[in-house]
Parts: sequence; C-alpha cells; structure tokens
Amino acid sequence: MPLRRSSWRALRRCSPPRPSSSTSEPTASRGACRGRPLLHKPSQRSFLSEDQVMTEQFSPEVATSGATGTGRAAVIGLGSMGYGMAQSLKRAGFDVAGFDVNAAAVERFAAEGGRGASSPAEAARDADVVVSVVVNAAQTETILFGPDGVAQTLADGAVFLSSATMDPDVARALAARLEATGRLYLDAPISGGAQRAAEGALTVLASGSPEAFAKARPALDAMAARLYELGDAPGQGAAFKMINQLLAGVHIAAASEAIAFAARQGLDIAKVYEVITASAGNSWMFENRMPHVVDGDYTPRSAVDIFVKDLGIIQDMARSAKFPVPVSAAALQMFLATSAAGMGRDDDASVARLYARITGTRLPGDPA
Amino acid sequence: MPLRRSSWRALRRCSPPRPSSSTSEPTASRGACRGRPLLHKPSQRSFLSEDQVMTEQFSPEVATSGATGTGRAAVIGLGSMGYGMAQSLKRAGFDVAGFDVNAAAVERFAAEGGRGASSPAEAARDADVVVSVVVNAAQTETILFGPDGVAQTLADGAVFLSSATMDPDVARALAARLEATGRLYLDAPISGGAQRAAEGALTVLASGSPEAFAKARPALDAMAARLYELGDAPGQGAAFKMINQLLAGVHIAAASEAIAFAARQGLDIAKVYEVITASAGNSWMFENRMPHVVDGDYTPRSAVDIFVKDLGIIQDMARSAKFPVPVSAAALQMFLATSAAGMGRDDDASVARLYARITGTRLPGDPA
Repeated sequence: MPLRRSSWRALRRCSPPRPSSSTSEPTASRGACRGRPLLHKPSQRSFLSEDQVMTEQFSPEVATSGATGTGRAAVIGLGSMGYGMAQSLKRAGFDVAGFDVNAAAVERFAAEGGRGASSPAEAARDADVVVSVVVNAAQTETILFGPDGVAQTLADGAVFLSSATMDPDVARALAARLEATGRLYLDAPISGGAQRAAEGALTVLASGSPEAFAKARPALDAMAARLYELGDAPGQGAAFKMINQLLAGVHIAAASEAIAFAARQGLDIAKVYEVITASAGNSWMFENRMPHVVDGDYTPRSAVDIFVKDLGIIQDMARSAKFPVPVSAAALQMFLATSAAGMGRDDDASVARLYARITGTRLPGDPA
Repeated sequence: MPLRRSSWRALRRCSPPRPSSSTSEPTASRGACRGRPLLHKPSQRSFLSEDQVMTEQFSPEVATSGATGTGRAAVIGLGSMGYGMAQSLKRAGFDVAGFDVNAAAVERFAAEGGRGASSPAEAARDADVVVSVVVNAAQTETILFGPDGVAQTLADGAVFLSSATMDPDVARALAARLEATGRLYLDAPISGGAQRAAEGALTVLASGSPEAFAKARPALDAMAARLYELGDAPGQGAAFKMINQLLAGVHIAAASEAIAFAARQGLDIAKVYEVITASAGNSWMFENRMPHVVDGDYTPRSAVDIFVKDLGIIQDMARSAKFPVPVSAAALQMFLATSAAGMGRDDDASVARLYARITGTRLPGDPA
C-alpha cells in the first residue's frame, strides 16, 4: 500500500499514461507509476470496483438528474464510470470532450457524438469543467501536471473535479498546486456504480471553495442524484470518503471472519445470512457481500486489492496523525493476506476464502 | 473475560444466589461467582444490556403473540427481561411461578397475580416449562444444579429453556447434564429488549431436540414474535448468537474508531453520521450507537463489559477451535481498554470516548 511520503515520491515518478490495446480493463489505470505493483494492482479494476463498493445503497427509484447544463466539459478517464458520467453531461446539454489512455474508448465516445481528445491537455482546452475519473492520487497528478496535462491548457477560473479516492492531505496538496495557477479545484469523490453514473444518479462527497462549487454546479447537477457539500476546502470530501472506506473494509473483513467461523462450527451459512441480516450484527457490507460466499461466486464486483489500497491509506493517515486504528489495521492484514494468497483481483468477499483455507474449512464452491 | 476452562472452574465455585435489597440493578445477576469481577461486572446490567444489543432491529409493528398456552411455567430471573416474559406467559394462560434472588421482585410478581417462589427448585416443581433468564453460563448452572436448583424438582419430560448467551460447548454440556436426568433442554438465546419481552414479541434463536421444541412451543408462542429453529441439538442457538455478537462487537469498535478518527480530522460528526448511514459503510450498530456519541450521552443502554464478556467468549471458542479471529481480537482489546479506563459499565459507545481520550480528541460532552 502507498505510504503517505512514498506516495508523493511515487507521484513524481509517475509516467504519463501509456496507450493500451486492452478494452477489457479499466483504462485510465494504465496511467500508472512503474514498479509499484501493490499501489497499482488495485487500480486495474477500480472503475468497476471502487464505485461498486457503494453501489445499490440508495433506493433504485432515485430520480435521475433533469438538469440542463451549458458550456464545455471534459471527462478524463472513459472507464465504466467516466463513460457514463460523460453521457450524463452530454444529455444535460454540455459539449463534452473525452480522453482516455485507451484509444478505443475515445473512438467509441467520438462515434457516439462526443469530442474525442488525444490528451488531457487537448480535452481540457476551453473547458469550463474538467471531470477526472481515475483511480488514485498518482493518476490524478499525472492528468493535472504530467506531460500533456490539464494544467497546460485549462482556462483561468475553470474548475477541475477530482473523483479519485485519496488521502485528504494529498487532495489538499493537488488542489493548492492547481489553484496557485488560477484554476479552481473541487474535491469530489463519487459513489454509486456504473449504472448510476450513466443515469446521472451518482452520490458525490464534495468539498471546495464556494467559487469551485458554483462553477461545478451545472456538471454536478448533471452527474449526481445526491450531492453532499462537506466543506469549503478540498480534503473534506476525501476525508469523508476515507471514513466510509475504513468502515466498509472492516465490515467486509468482520463478515468474512464471522461467516467462515460459522462454517467452521458446522452452521448452515445460508441460515446464518438469514439470521444476521435480521439482527443487530448486520452491516451493509455483510448483506451485500456475503451472498457471494453463500453462492461460492468470487467473480470480482469489487476487488480485494481495492481495500488493500484504501485501508492502507487509512493506516498512513492515522499513523501520520498519531491516531491508533487497531481494528482497521487488523482488517487490512486480512486483505493483505488474501491478496498475498493470490486472490487480490478476486471479489473482496474472498477474505472469507482466506479464513476458510488457512483453517481447512469448507465453503461453497471453494474446496478447502 | 471467562476462559473456557476457567469458566468451568468458575461454575464449580459458584455460590448460590444471595438476596439483595437493590431493585435498581438487574437482580439475578447477584447469583454470581465470588472474586471474578471481570466475569461478573457485565452481568450486573445484562438484562438490560445484552438484550438491548438487538433491540429495535425489527419493525415496531411486529404483532404480539396471540397464543394461549396452558399448563404451568416457571421463570427464573425476574429482571427487565424475565419479568416481561413471565407477564407474556401469564397473558397466554400459563400458571406462572417466578423466582429471583431479589425478594422484592418476587413480591411484586406475586402481588400482580403470579406465584412467588423461594428458590429455583420451588418454582420448577410441577412446571411443564422452566424459562431461565439469567446472564451467563455460571448463573445458568447455579440455577440448574446448585443448592435448591431446578434439577432437584423438575418433572421428568419437562423442558428447561436457557436464554443466556454462552459458549455453545458450555450449552451442550449443561444440556447433556440435564437431559441425562430425563428432562429436556432447549438452547434458546433471546433478543429484543424489555419492551418486546413484555409484549411477547421477542426473537428466539433456538436449537434442541424435537421433543424439547414440542414441549416448549406453547411457551415460545407466548414469548416470541420470531422463532428461529436452528438445529436439533443444544449449542446451535448459542452458536448463532455468538456469531451475531462477534459482528455486533466488531461493528461498535469500528464505528468508534471511525467516528473518533473523523472527529480528530475536524469533521462534523453529525454530518459523518448522516453520510455514513446513507452509505456502504453503514452497520446496524453504527446507526444505533453513534447517536450516543454525537449527543455525548453515555447512559448505558448496553454496557461495555457485555462485549468484554461476549468477545471474550468468541476468543475462547476460536482459540479452542484453532481458528484465528484477528479482527474480533482487535475489537476485544478496545472494549478491554475502555473497561480498564473505568467505563466498563457505561454505554458501549464509550469505546469512541477511549479513542478520543488517548488521542486528545474532543467529542461532544466528553472533554478530552
């Protein structure tokens, strides 16, 4: 996982996005740092995964945005989330330019009526708002300040929306660096999954200056069904997202510990699911993830390595603040062990498989 | 907390219940072992606490039981739960004898139309069903096999319902010991809180022989709105309850870690509550307990020491099964630290206060 300081070194070592012929993987993740597999393995599923961490938590009938925006927008990162957000912006009336390190995604976007761009700088030229939909701080810095970065062309007074989950201090540093150049920065982590992105029904945990909110509002109205305005400075949005990730990660590890221990005792885990989801031991993650264990289906909806990354960020934040977090530290170790056992890219409910394997416990679909 | 083996030694060292003049404390808890404060401190709030762990998790409009039973029942332990259960049995048509170590509770019960008894043995004489509503295995064994215990008088073929949360192996051992004498044993941990107990609307996690279920059913119908039949042998009910307690305890510790860390970062914890309860990081315990932190009100609904006890039982069970449980082990340490800091009898959300105090973080109503 990234250490706070080494992550800064990592940012400086980042290479620009490299073209990829793959369309099966989230694409902007290729704009990654070399030689930091633990840092970047997570990113390779993160458009899907990180957001599906919060998918389905709101009632399905959440109204899609009826906002009609005007002006020019750019979306950097046309993965499962970014592509849908670009569609929502177009539907709301924006003239939208799109860039992705995967040329095929850009071609598809252009074929469907968007403006394809060959670089973040080209996409951002003349844009009122640039929406960055990448996986982490390293990619965000590359898009802002790397070769052909947004900072080279973005108009004065235009706003950069950063949706990646990252350490709040890193978000503050990126924002300060951009705002020193006369542009606005909105710290705006997102959740809701690919379908809500396409519907303009995301949840956004946002913080930034009143000017940044004002400039970004038409785009936020186009993309979000629920906007939390969490403070007047970048970093607050990131901090709320990290608190959610702390809890979500611990709850997956606890659910895995509990259901594997129940199986070890010979309990019917389908019955355990029925009883716990009607009891005080329930959590959103238990209810959402444990069916994967009951069904023995570890097809990744959200990958183990996403929480290796996010609980790692929590540890870095907490150590830097001299704040002990023993419960999330224990949870991180279980995600790390699951990743070390070769399941890093599998569904994060695989933590239950790790408990089962090290104890010789049989779980559905996974002979111990 | 009780170690599996030492808890058995503890059972053998148990003194019979001693009369108490206090009516303000749950009463059967006085049937405790001498010199085991960590084991027994929890019990002193447990009628209130252990059950409120699961209070309010079901919709308020759960119908109260309309069952009408016949025959004779005994309730041992007329605390906040047992008294209500005895009322539900009377309402259903049972002739109910009640015993408690607190003579005042027995007198009140008799004054309200019940039969007061002077010992478990007297209460159980001629009873078809004996409902034990005490806090732990030690008290349960005292009631069964101690001086003036139920086993001295219970009729052949009558059933003993044990509602205390305990190690499933201990439940199996108590059941085997009683069933060897020709009586039936139903392992039947309860949840739902004092109000549901009085309404006959409890949740029961039960396991036992078909004969035990058949004999107990009229009483279960009178006391429970929701009955989970979890197996045909004692121990299964206890095992399901312990899995719930593992999750509930970890979720309280995680919620405390998260909200105190959020406060440490200067986030508005009322806003954190709003965002998290609408997010994937939510848990039943976060939603139920964190308002105590936001309000700075640590009046005990469920005490810290209840989870010192229950997560302790989990550790004993897991170590005995050679099953690592690092996440709940970390959570237990935080409950222990909170108890060691003098908050053992305070509300279990006090774990957040411990995080705040050791980090100099300010929480509402608790100057750090």
